Amino acid sequence: MTYDKHPRGFASDNNAPVHPTVLEAMQRVNNGHAVGYGDDPWSPQAAERIASLFGDKAEVFFVLTGTGANVMALGSAMHPWHSVICAETAHIHEDECGAPERFTGSKVIPIGHVHGKITPALIDKELTGFGFEHHSQPRVISISQTTERGTVYTPEEIRELAALAHDHGMVLHVDGARIANAVAALGITLKEMITGTGVDILSFGGTKDGMMYGEAVVILNGTLAKDFRYIRKQGMQLASKMRYIAAQFLAWLEDDLWLKNARHANRMASLLAQEAAAIPAIRILHPVEANGVFATLPKEKIPALQEEYFFYLFDENIPAVRWMTSWDTTEEDVKGFIDMLRKQLT
Amino acid sequence: MTYDKHPRGFASDNNAPVHPTVLEAMQRVNNGHAVGYGDDPWSPQAAERIASLFGDKAEVFFVLTGTGANVMALGSAMHPWHSVICAETAHIHEDECGAPERFTGSKVIPIGHVHGKITPALIDKELTGFGFEHHSQPRVISISQTTERGTVYTPEEIRELAALAHDHGMVLHVDGARIANAVAALGITLKEMITGTGVDILSFGGTKDGMMYGEAVVILNGTLAKDFRYIRKQGMQLASKMRYIAAQFLAWLEDDLWLKNARHANRMASLLAQEAAAIPAIRILHPVEANGVFATLPKEKIPALQEEYFFYLFDENIPAVRWMTSWDTTEEDVKGFIDMLRKQLT
Amino acid sequence: MTYDKHPRGFASDNNAPVHPTVLEAMQRVNNGHAVGYGDDPWSPQAAERIASLFGDKAEVFFVLTGTGANVMALGSAMHPWHSVICAETAHIHEDECGAPERFTGSKVIPIGHVHGKITPALIDKELTGFGFEHHSQPRVISISQTTERGTVYTPEEIRELAALAHDHGMVLHVDGARIANAVAALGITLKEMITGTGVDILSFGGTKDGMMYGEAVVILNGTLAKDFRYIRKQGMQLASKMRYIAAQFLAWLEDDLWLKNARHANRMASLLAQEAAAIPAIRILHPVEANGVFATLPKEKIPALQEEYFFYLFDENIPAVRWMTSWDTTEEDVKGFIDMLRKQLT
Amino acid sequence: MTYDKHPRGFASDNNAPVHPTVLEAMQRVNNGHAVGYGDDPWSPQAAERIASLFGDKAEVFFVLTGTGANVMALGSAMHPWHSVICAETAHIHEDECGAPERFTGSKVIPIGHVHGKITPALIDKELTGFGFEHHSQPRVISISQTTERGTVYTPEEIRELAALAHDHGMVLHVDGARIANAVAALGITLKEMITGTGVDILSFGGTKDGMMYGEAVVILNGTLAKDFRYIRKQGMQLASKMRYIAAQFLAWLEDDLWLKNARHANRMASLLAQEAAAIPAIRILHPVEANGVFATLPKEKIPALQEEYFFYLFDENIPAVRWMTSWDTTEEDVKGFIDMLRKQLT
Repeated sequence: MTYDKHPRGFASDNNAPVHPTVLEAMQRVNNGHAVGYGDDPWSPQAAERIASLFGDKAEVFFVLTGTGANVMALGSAMHPWHSVICAETAHIHEDECGAPERFTGSKVIPIGHVHGKITPALIDKELTGFGFEHHSQPRVISISQTTERGTVYTPEEIRELAALAHDHGMVLHVDGARIANAVAALGITLKEMITGTGVDILSFGGTKDGMMYGEAVVILNGTLAKDFRYIRKQGMQLASKMRYIAAQFLAWLEDDLWLKNARHANRMASLLAQEAAAIPAIRILHPVEANGVFATLPKEKIPALQEEYFFYLFDENIPAVRWMTSWDTTEEDVKGFIDMLRKQLT
Repeated sequence: MTYDKHPRGFASDNNAPVHPTVLEAMQRVNNGHAVGYGDDPWSPQAAERIASLFGDKAEVFFVLTGTGANVMALGSAMHPWHSVICAETAHIHEDECGAPERFTGSKVIPIGHVHGKITPALIDKELTGFGFEHHSQPRVISISQTTERGTVYTPEEIRELAALAHDHGMVLHVDGARIANAVAALGITLKEMITGTGVDILSFGGTKDGMMYGEAVVILNGTLAKDFRYIRKQGMQLASKMRYIAAQFLAWLEDDLWLKNARHANRMASLLAQEAAAIPAIRILHPVEANGVFATLPKEKIPALQEEYFFYLFDENIPAVRWMTSWDTTEEDVKGFIDMLRKQLT
Repeated sequence: MTYDKHPRGFASDNNAPVHPTVLEAMQRVNNGHAVGYGDDPWSPQAAERIASLFGDKAEVFFVLTGTGANVMALGSAMHPWHSVICAETAHIHEDECGAPERFTGSKVIPIGHVHGKITPALIDKELTGFGFEHHSQPRVISISQTTERGTVYTPEEIRELAALAHDHGMVLHVDGARIANAVAALGITLKEMITGTGVDILSFGGTKDGMMYGEAVVILNGTLAKDFRYIRKQGMQLASKMRYIAAQFLAWLEDDLWLKNARHANRMASLLAQEAAAIPAIRILHPVEANGVFATLPKEKIPALQEEYFFYLFDENIPAVRWMTSWDTTEEDVKGFIDMLRKQLT
Repeated sequence: MTYDKHPRGFASDNNAPVHPTVLEAMQRVNNGHAVGYGDDPWSPQAAERIASLFGDKAEVFFVLTGTGANVMALGSAMHPWHSVICAETAHIHEDECGAPERFTGSKVIPIGHVHGKITPALIDKELTGFGFEHHSQPRVISISQTTERGTVYTPEEIRELAALAHDHGMVLHVDGARIANAVAALGITLKEMITGTGVDILSFGGTKDGMMYGEAVVILNGTLAKDFRYIRKQGMQLASKMRYIAAQFLAWLEDDLWLKNARHANRMASLLAQEAAAIPAIRILHPVEANGVFATLPKEKIPALQEEYFFYLFDENIPAVRWMTSWDTTEEDVKGFIDMLRKQLT
């Protein structure tokens, strides 16, 4: 698979380039000396800008990668004898090569899911062994918003999970690698979705929505922020020239660029899903609520499709494919892809 | 301390901006989709370009930060029951908040130094307990080239340390956060300095010499490369949009930009040291061989100097200050600084 | 719950005292000085005695606890980027407070089970992501023999799991905290059950079968033994006065005391299960193949039963109780218990 | 070296057998079932007995080994971004194969010493970097009482170190593997030596003074006890049949057996040192304040001495030998050893 035939594919939203506005902002701060590690003029400004999206009490820390953001977030909430409960599809369980376990020393407990979402009923059987020294102590519930199956938790669902966590002295973490797509999908504010529902800590990512690198950990529950700076440095997630991360966030958040990007990507996925669903050989597997489309189709047909457009076979057994749209996906891209699908699958 | 009065100070070479040629290269690759995590067209090209500087057998892996590069390098060589011997001034001991210990689970043994350098004689007493299960097993000797005191190991010194390591079944790691300055200072190639002397693994950094972010781990001893990809991912050091790191390295290495930057910074430090040494109140503490000047002067005078130019009090007790030059330091910067020093210290 | 009314209960086989023959042996070696940490005269003798049960190539290391044995075994086989697949009922997942994750830095993947056993079909979906750096690399399949539900794997079942592991470059670990009961149940030798089936590493426990403390890690796959001594010391599992562990094993293995103890406990469980099954209010939940009986009965009746005899409510939801027999359980104990059950449940 | 010629040597106090009174006590509790993991009748009794030696507020937890006690103690006080400062001779630095680093993820900082003791002046230069995220945060000062060179801190010295620690928001840990010898040497109570001086946490060992296995962690600073049970279990230091550890401590503390043993061992060391010092070829290296004698003598003579009596060459370079006495060393043993030394060294 290559991008030779079509320079934009549907493999992953992180394959997209950086939005030009973001890149220009990086260039604008490239001027004169600035203190490293966040003591430059832009980093506090960007942190404040992000915090303002969540209300007064949010504390914001920049890190380098999505995995880094998740692991630092968990590290700020967990002792090694704690456990985090998450969907078996969660990035922290499936896609981080055990980084949470290695860094925190704690246990990741994967549970079943419904279209990528976990529910109190599914979590319930793991809420056990509190106070029993032989058992890892449940400490974090972690969800992904948008989920790894392209669905979006409603604020009510998040509120219910936060309440469940808090009732057990636990905290709720949100992996927001695609939080922009969820905000765009729900048409509510981050304050409503995150602060208002009781989320304790959020990995706030922009790399899949027009940024180059760098993520923010947003702590709503102040007690978790206490030692974050040490955790971040020891976790190798402290950027020296932090101004270039700050500049990205400032540009990405200005004039709702982040939301425009996400809305566009969502719309493209919606279009793609609608058209694909009309092709008899294709069945859409999960509700398409953000920028990902999961579908099944005859396995033997897949390689030929991949030769035209770059995308991944997501699960060999179903078989399921994953098609992601991004801020730069065009209607022509979708139409061309659909035409190709129609041609090859009929 | 601020950069208000002088936009370029002598606090740190990582306070300098990105070289414009590097930034332009990042912009040039910002076009179309590219596979993430290093499977884009530029990353292998940049890795090959770097490898070619070291001879045929080097393997190159991109990571995100200097601390990340060091810890990944150690992680590829060490089991938790191993130890790494380094100068008590080493970045891995002093400045990484215990990241090596936490990630590798192993022991860092700091020893004395001469102007930032360690020697076989100083290392000797820690080369003990081999095969004795009660004792962490010595496994790595780690040096910084350029050292944290601005000095540069000669190839003969490195060769002797590599031989010592190999004689004990150990490996030699070089923290090359300022390797460019050392190469510029010695006027030899990386192949002569690193491959030819027997170094096993190198943290190859450019952020202090004109790059924005991203480092390379260069493995000369092939057996250490075997599981590096897993170590890097679990170490949260795998960039998703890696093309932007590759582009930086390609531009930085082209037409010897890295060496020109480093030579310039070294020359500025040399000029600064020469002029400063002529001021009676100042005494230079270490040989000025690269881009750092360490000096002592009357403690009570320091705050006023810092109000003019941004630099750090490095050791309160001596008292020692550290003045770093960078690729963008101008002769005027140095002269202005010297004038100010002369005025205030006479 | 106390042991006031009946000095022997059915709560746990590790609540039983030490077999007098074992204690006498400890006393016999309590004479004169002996080098610590295993260099005494008895430790090599005990290690050799154990090794002889497995064939020529077994290597034997003494450790302190069952959890310690399991974690050291995993530690000898796993890098932090590896994963171990086990039943969700496994001691390493449920009952070790995350010790495997913390010590090895790796991932424990719990899967479904049938009466405490895992099968190739259940394991299959986790045998994925090999060579993919984002995914913890499957490295160990771990089973408990006797299982945590009182069942026993047949040699054929073990052989099949070992083959599955080896086909994937993985190893098979057996948590043998109750291996004696399994050997007694199957009427075969350890060589047939462990060496002959392809097991790579075994936690060999005696504490639940008449010993006081101390376990042995038996390595059948020699490559795993290479660094075990360091792993054990760093894992805080190296006893200084090791002669007292060696003496226990020597006495426990002499004249088949270990098997006699286990056979007796199994017989008592069998008797208990047979009689209990005849009580209409009781249903046995799992095949009773060793020394544990799992049963369900009306929840409201349980507290009164527990006031008479000490045993645990194992799972509140089913509800399930667990009754363990031990080397010192008498027929009268069983009969008294059954009488009490009959009386209270009819 | 063997114990063939003399069944009691001077190699190590942990080579001595268990005191018969202790072994008898273990036998006495070997009766009926008892709940595991400390919920038996004896464990709380033993914990209370130990706590009473320290005053009202001590909390006591049993663990398995001396290394285990030290690492659990550190683990209860330290986050991974913390550091512990200790003598370069400390057991936690020299003799635990990196167990503290691996379990806690934190940094061990070795410093110089005077006859095995550290002082505020020696500690001072490491009390730096507080609040600076690049630097491991100093959190624990750890001393050994008796030291690894056979000397004993006075209460005044301990008080001064505790004050220094507390002034910096740190805690003082005492490795008391040979605390009995120190108590015997000073003729004061544990309450005076430990509680009264401000020690926060103590590893309380008996294995070198007549016990078989098992140590106690005594927490004087209540905040450190909060999660100890989880730390202990995850640290693989929770004994299942804990009654046998409790029985040992109860017997060892009864009628001052522990002090009688220690006083005797100290007296034997004193006698040995006095007689040895009179031999011209021998020079005593450190004040003999407890049960260890460190001496230097002509290197070429040592092997012949070791053929007669088992003892260790402690430091090849000096050369230094270490002679330890124990609760069962007899005057005849000392005299025989001295006679032999005299004969061979004259």
